[in-house]
Amino acid sequence: MPAELAPIDLDKAGQEMYELVADLYPICRSITGHGVRETLRRIQKRIPLLLREVPTGTRVFDWTVPKEWNIRDAYVKDWRGERVIDFQKSNLHVVSYSVPVRARLPLDELRGHLFTLPEQPDLVPYRTSYYREAWGFCLAHRRLLELADGQYEVCVDASLEPGHLTYGECHLPGETSEEVLISCHVCHPSLCNDNLSGIALSTLLAERLASRSCRYSYRFLFVPGTIGAITWLSQNEGAVERIRHGLVVTGVGDAGRITYKKSRRGDAEIDRAARHVLGRSGDDFEIREFSPYGYDERQFCSPGFDLPVGCLMRTPHGSYPQYHTSGDDLRFVHPSRLADSLAKCLQIFEVLEGNRTYVSQNPKCEPQLGRRGLYRAVGGQADPGQAEMAMLWVLNLSDGRHTLLDIAERSALPFSVVKRAADILGEHALLRESAGPSRALAERTGGRS
Amino acid sequence: MPAELAPIDLDKAGQEMYELVADLYPICRSITGHGVRETLRRIQKRIPLLLREVPTGTRVFDWTVPKEWNIRDAYVKDWRGERVIDFQKSNLHVVSYSVPVRARLPLDELRGHLFTLPEQPDLVPYRTSYYREAWGFCLAHRRLLELADGQYEVCVDASLEPGHLTYGECHLPGETSEEVLISCHVCHPSLCNDNLSGIALSTLLAERLASRSCRYSYRFLFVPGTIGAITWLSQNEGAVERIRHGLVVTGVGDAGRITYKKSRRGDAEIDRAARHVLGRSGDDFEIREFSPYGYDERQFCSPGFDLPVGCLMRTPHGSYPQYHTSGDDLRFVHPSRLADSLAKCLQIFEVLEGNRTYVSQNPKCEPQLGRRGLYRAVGGQADPGQAEMAMLWVLNLSDGRHTLLDIAERSALPFSVVKRAADILGEHALLRESAGPSRALAERTGGRS
Amino acid sequence: MPAELAPIDLDKAGQEMYELVADLYPICRSITGHGVRETLRRIQKRIPLLLREVPTGTRVFDWTVPKEWNIRDAYVKDWRGERVIDFQKSNLHVVSYSVPVRARLPLDELRGHLFTLPEQPDLVPYRTSYYREAWGFCLAHRRLLELADGQYEVCVDASLEPGHLTYGECHLPGETSEEVLISCHVCHPSLCNDNLSGIALSTLLAERLASRSCRYSYRFLFVPGTIGAITWLSQNEGAVERIRHGLVVTGVGDAGRITYKKSRRGDAEIDRAARHVLGRSGDDFEIREFSPYGYDERQFCSPGFDLPVGCLMRTPHGSYPQYHTSGDDLRFVHPSRLADSLAKCLQIFEVLEGNRTYVSQNPKCEPQLGRRGLYRAVGGQADPGQAEMAMLWVLNLSDGRHTLLDIAERSALPFSVVKRAADILGEHALLRESAGPSRALAERTGGRS
Repeated sequence: MPAELAPIDLDKAGQEMYELVADLYPICRSITGHGVRETLRRIQKRIPLLLREVPTGTRVFDWTVPKEWNIRDAYVKDWRGERVIDFQKSNLHVVSYSVPVRARLPLDELRGHLFTLPEQPDLVPYRTSYYREAWGFCLAHRRLLELADGQYEVCVDASLEPGHLTYGECHLPGETSEEVLISCHVCHPSLCNDNLSGIALSTLLAERLASRSCRYSYRFLFVPGTIGAITWLSQNEGAVERIRHGLVVTGVGDAGRITYKKSRRGDAEIDRAARHVLGRSGDDFEIREFSPYGYDERQFCSPGFDLPVGCLMRTPHGSYPQYHTSGDDLRFVHPSRLADSLAKCLQIFEVLEGNRTYVSQNPKCEPQLGRRGLYRAVGGQADPGQAEMAMLWVLNLSDGRHTLLDIAERSALPFSVVKRAADILGEHALLRESAGPSRALAERTGGRS
Repeated sequence: MPAELAPIDLDKAGQEMYELVADLYPICRSITGHGVRETLRRIQKRIPLLLREVPTGTRVFDWTVPKEWNIRDAYVKDWRGERVIDFQKSNLHVVSYSVPVRARLPLDELRGHLFTLPEQPDLVPYRTSYYREAWGFCLAHRRLLELADGQYEVCVDASLEPGHLTYGECHLPGETSEEVLISCHVCHPSLCNDNLSGIALSTLLAERLASRSCRYSYRFLFVPGTIGAITWLSQNEGAVERIRHGLVVTGVGDAGRITYKKSRRGDAEIDRAARHVLGRSGDDFEIREFSPYGYDERQFCSPGFDLPVGCLMRTPHGSYPQYHTSGDDLRFVHPSRLADSLAKCLQIFEVLEGNRTYVSQNPKCEPQLGRRGLYRAVGGQADPGQAEMAMLWVLNLSDGRHTLLDIAERSALPFSVVKRAADILGEHALLRESAGPSRALAERTGGRS
Repeated sequence: MPAELAPIDLDKAGQEMYELVADLYPICRSITGHGVRETLRRIQKRIPLLLREVPTGTRVFDWTVPKEWNIRDAYVKDWRGERVIDFQKSNLHVVSYSVPVRARLPLDELRGHLFTLPEQPDLVPYRTSYYREAWGFCLAHRRLLELADGQYEVCVDASLEPGHLTYGECHLPGETSEEVLISCHVCHPSLCNDNLSGIALSTLLAERLASRSCRYSYRFLFVPGTIGAITWLSQNEGAVERIRHGLVVTGVGDAGRITYKKSRRGDAEIDRAARHVLGRSGDDFEIREFSPYGYDERQFCSPGFDLPVGCLMRTPHGSYPQYHTSGDDLRFVHPSRLADSLAKCLQIFEVLEGNRTYVSQNPKCEPQLGRRGLYRAVGGQADPGQAEMAMLWVLNLSDGRHTLLDIAERSALPFSVVKRAADILGEHALLRESAGPSRALAERTGGRS
């Protein structure tokens, strides 16, 4: 990856991502339906995204693509005809995948279909009922307490019928067919951090990478959570062997510190690259061990695939009070945080792009750097600078068994400095690229499926 | 091992063990002789114990079964005919394996045969002279100071003659011929924590296991320390390859915290099971590294066997002031501590019994738990409960390379919860048992001798 | 190595080393020339040192042996004819390898050839210009400030002509042809800690080892830094495979704590021996990870050799203010510190000499130590002493896979105690020496080049 990837106008990128979040915010997305299609179409304006449609009933491993759900309107009216719960005001008010209903029923009976958060009485929760046919409404607990006894008119004007599951796929070819996978989920309605922030970051990332030549090919997935990832994996089993690194991007716009959750392997190259980048950022950060709960890393890291896919986020899901509530709105995400997440994402990919393995062409003793103009002329001074130290480290460890990231970690030097040293040494014919341990690993992984 | 093993009436068990200790306390045991036989006969009332008799002079590896020692009486009388040291009052007063003697000698000469503890002047020490023919008496140092100069009459009415070494063996067949070995020593006279507590715990453990069906076969050894274990190993070399796990049980009745001493291997399955159980008990505990000093783990873990045998105790030998003195009496052990040790022992075996390895039958992506009724129906809520997390962990790591204990450790969930999740998933045909790494290890170990 | 190596008259040895440092201090050494020869000749008075002469122009890997530099006089005179900078007062005043020059030039022009330490205004720096033909003078910054404007007469009466690079080599044959390499640099002029301390320690070490029979052969190199080590390696590639352990000795006379810098491998036997010795010394110490900067370990640990060579020093180069200045004089090194460094060096070699691997001849259960008089006769006492514990450890771990150093580390016993236990057990035919893991490793290493 060219060095120019890193210097990016972060203010501008942050603003653009925020505007994309705002643009997509009102759309009522679910795991299927027009909301996803409309979202993907707007992303298509920026990047070469293909929309894939998979018919209802398609078997995808242990699952089946569900019926397509579309909703036009939904409300609960009181006896005066006033909409006391109104889908038009917020799509969170309807339990996602609610079946159509038109009924009159007393408050006591209605209560069984209402979801609130008693401990956060001003927030509307986000609820779904994908795999059990039911209907329901979500509302602020304070609002529920205000509802008087009496008859209410309920309407969910939705359809749940055979159709398609829709997802988006954007493939950016690189120098090699080896791939980096970036995946985000697109199935949440008006929630900003949880789904829109990842969508926006993925979009700008793809936009940026599309304009450059990279070592790796990059594949972006914009998929409904769980069923979308399962569908893609089911229909692309052959493609999986090309994936060398992967990242699920989600919840990257809030004010919390950056968090990287490791792949199931725990020591995949992307795990080490992320740790290197976050550890040297100067910012607070957290590295989490893998767990089989979270986002679509659950599927990518299932034992039959065990892909080297981590997850980049800020505050992890479930650990901020606005999570899956109406509080996850446009005030909860920030252009500067989106930009910071994008920058760290690019830095991680920069490590992956540059993490090659070399063999010193002068393995016996040090080569004479001085006569090549690579070493200070006056001797006797104290320690050399970082650049000279990096050259010595690269020469010492370039035995075909250490990647540049290995060398950066052992020397405690920034990867970029080590990479630059390797580039200079390569220009002087002091290094030759080697298949290296990472390639050997990659081949083993690739040969797996 | 059935789950019902754990729920045990601990108060009752503790009381029974304490009564057994009290019953066996007066008997004068040594490494051979009637004391051991009488002890084993009383244990036979509770469990199917076979008494083995090995003749004096039998070669057992580098050792030889010694002569049989039996004692009827022993004393030191002063010139008034008063017994100033009297075996009838406590069998600790005679150095174990003292040769017969009848003599009159002055105090100065007698002193060379007297053993006391000057720093614990009220306690009688426990001393032996197994492999050098000698005689001696042990007494409280305060008592020694009271002895006036003068002639003393010494009598050890004992026999040291060709006979047998006696030990007890109880074999409980399980589903497989793979064995768990439990060993305790039976060679100490009136010492409660050091030998009787282990005898009592082993007896109740065998009693309990005898009434149930287990995956493993269990073999209990009640042997004289060192020479007994060496004799058993020497005469059962062929049986050793069946031993998958083992535990030396000793010093399990005092008030100290529970201590597990690892096997020589350090990472044997029983080492990990013990750490898991003790670490999650909520009680204070200690895990000790292996050392070639202590109890019969010295023999089981000698390099020619290197069996996966750990040692369960409370306060380690030598580190309590009552150790090997008359202070290790019926007040030093407690029913509740015996019960706690038994409970932890059972929990460790519960892990071993249940520690199987599985292969997910849906390794590619998660199986759809919801349609099997194994997952909550309403989506969007925060983290799932422990039971659901355990199912996700088991599915994710069941690739034939992780045992359930591996999964419990990586997920930081209790083994019992992970086991239950695996059972449920198995009932839904989502798992299939695999030979697994533990079996592969077991086979390697088994094929060793 | 005989145990008598350790008890050495340290006061006397410290004094002798200090006197050798003082004797060599005035000589103007550089990477070639008479200063090195004179230094080596004085060392020859004590040890059987061979002087090697390698002609200018000889190719040594990526390098070329440089012209030989010799200097007779050098000064800067002011207009009154007064020597304001005078080589006769201190050889540090001339930049090493300055080309001959005779000129008159104004102060402003002269300044470009003057080197000072503005932050240490009273000290004269040490500077070199080995691989770029130039001339220069070093002086105290305070002296520079005193120089008045005006014309100065400059003279460097030196020669830089084809000749030889000189180094010294001392080989002490041992029982086997396997070698321990000790290397020090001999290329610095009047600097005491940095070069003379290492020279003095190496000399006394060789003197001592020459008078004894050792398991290993020892090879001492007294070489100009970098180019000397490269030259030796280049001309002795075949000899490298015999090197089992190595130590660069440098900066061993200052008052700082002892420091061991690990070999590139990080877990070589000498790394572990040094850690064992320093960790048990009771003195403050530091273990440093390898880095490809420092002394000639850079060459010995280059990837094409990767020799198990560490570096023993006190305060590391560059981290004391007197480093490479006139402050590194006879007041900066101390007989007692030289002696302490020598003692630790000898202790490390003592571990290497004694670090053998054994196989117990009674691997099944413990052998009966008592009947061999190796174990106390009266049983029942608390823990045995260190000597008995060491025997038990050696017997337990002597399975051909543990060296005595492994056993010392695992048992937390001093190596000498473990060694003594092994010797006693060997005398009783309870152990047989085995090729062991260290030999297997040595063979792998030896077969490398």
